[in-house]
Amino acid sequence: MNKIIECVPNFSEGRDLNKVEKILDIFRGKQDLKLLDYSSDEDHNRSVVTIVGEPEALKKAMVEAIGKAIELIDLTKHEGQHPRMGAVDVIPFIPIKNVTVDEADNLAKEVAKEASEKYGLPFFLYEKSATQSHRENLATVRKGQFEGMAEKMKDDKWKPDFGPETIHPTAGVTAIGARMPLVAYNINLSTNNLEIASKIGKQVRHLSGGFRYVKAMGIELEDRGIVQVSMNLTDYTKTSIYRVFETVKMEAARYGVNIVGSEIVGLLPMQALVDTADYYLRLENFSMDQVLETRL
Amino acid sequence: MNKIIECVPNFSEGRDLNKVEKILDIFRGKQDLKLLDYSSDEDHNRSVVTIVGEPEALKKAMVEAIGKAIELIDLTKHEGQHPRMGAVDVIPFIPIKNVTVDEADNLAKEVAKEASEKYGLPFFLYEKSATQSHRENLATVRKGQFEGMAEKMKDDKWKPDFGPETIHPTAGVTAIGARMPLVAYNINLSTNNLEIASKIGKQVRHLSGGFRYVKAMGIELEDRGIVQVSMNLTDYTKTSIYRVFETVKMEAARYGVNIVGSEIVGLLPMQALVDTADYYLRLENFSMDQVLETRL
Repeated sequence: MNKIIECVPNFSEGRDLNKVEKILDIFRGKQDLKLLDYSSDEDHNRSVVTIVGEPEALKKAMVEAIGKAIELIDLTKHEGQHPRMGAVDVIPFIPIKNVTVDEADNLAKEVAKEASEKYGLPFFLYEKSATQSHRENLATVRKGQFEGMAEKMKDDKWKPDFGPETIHPTAGVTAIGARMPLVAYNINLSTNNLEIASKIGKQVRHLSGGFRYVKAMGIELEDRGIVQVSMNLTDYTKTSIYRVFETVKMEAARYGVNIVGSEIVGLLPMQALVDTADYYLRLENFSMDQVLETRL
Repeated sequence: MNKIIECVPNFSEGRDLNKVEKILDIFRGKQDLKLLDYSSDEDHNRSVVTIVGEPEALKKAMVEAIGKAIELIDLTKHEGQHPRMGAVDVIPFIPIKNVTVDEADNLAKEVAKEASEKYGLPFFLYEKSATQSHRENLATVRKGQFEGMAEKMKDDKWKPDFGPETIHPTAGVTAIGARMPLVAYNINLSTNNLEIASKIGKQVRHLSGGFRYVKAMGIELEDRGIVQVSMNLTDYTKTSIYRVFETVKMEAARYGVNIVGSEIVGLLPMQALVDTADYYLRLENFSMDQVLETRL
């Protein structure tokens, strides 16, 4: 695969695994497409699926999967702890390799256009694809959930970007758009004082004056007797891991506190680590093409 | 490909490109094998080929290529600037992915065994595969070249590891073995004083008391008006890039000199950069499996 986009659709079915399997089957055994991961949560009554593939293959499979979800999932009968507004609740497209955010954004719009025409399902564009700033945040878009969405959409502010002007009777409405890969990144401090981790969390997070693409909070690691600045980096290409690390180190020093370690939870793109090595080694003219594995 | 080994055979033909193409064809269009790069040098009268592949596929193709080289290349008629002792002069195997040095070493021995039996060609094991320490260095093994090798091999010190006890009449003898990937790494200093770069080169290189897997020298970058510590890291898993960087920085500080940049020339394995990020970010429990690209 040359161009790779990741897609992480969330389906509002986490209990009837036969139904989930029927959706997963669409992503299996396809050219230029790979089903990387999936998990179903009974309490949430929701399944999160991770697929990677070439844009065209991804588009075809996603449109088919949306149709299957509409056929199998009835939101008028759905209950679960996780907020939801659609049979396919949200479909993020994430640029991974040889792909720009704009190409992921285009793919989101193409899928929304085709699926809305084929199935009469409305779509909101969110995150990097949002047409209006109040639609960037998924929680804001989804507020009111399936049950309140027909009423909400009467407001011009919430007219869908594609498809009919009100909800699909059983499948609701879907949020779709491009976003950057999330990097879950935590920094552990040499203190058990939660207040220090909380203060530093506030200093680095966007919400309270920090870096634009950082969400952060202080938490206790009770078994280790230390505290942690727990973060999500929502665009590592603009707010780099090393910059966040050095800033937390600098703020912690003010309390005589050191960083004892940091951790990356789950996956991250190679580029995020290469950027880090590039900074500390002061590399000149380094290109990802020089990483042997990218040639294979 | 799951397990990946790189192989960089050097063939003693760099002028008759028809012959070179016949050898290259053996590596083309094969399952679990990829011809990554090749270049022929007229002055050296030598071609360097880079192939990556699964061990079994690599073995099969290399044995076949050795046979083809013996058929096409006659060292009694060979002349060129580069020292050589065989039609296939040297065959290094380099572990790249999910492979240990021992597995690369085994592969080298299997190829030597099979090719020696099939073609009556003698082999010296060198580098990490060397059976005696005086055979580790290729230049030492090759000393005397094709013309002097029959005489040299009469000495018990130079009895081949595989094959007949004297040279193949037209194809000479081949060095084969496992080695680690080389990382060509240069550090640029904020001074035009060559003596400082040379001194630091001596401090970090193995030969004069430095790190075991570093070769280094000071050179001038005349157009930029600065000097450089120019290095080869011969085993980045044991002598890490960041350790060399920090040591050069520390030594340079003694002269009031800073590092203005560093450069990686050519390819390097992803692990070398991940190790660097791991050190500076003080990562806890990070695994290469967390790099998204390794999942694709």
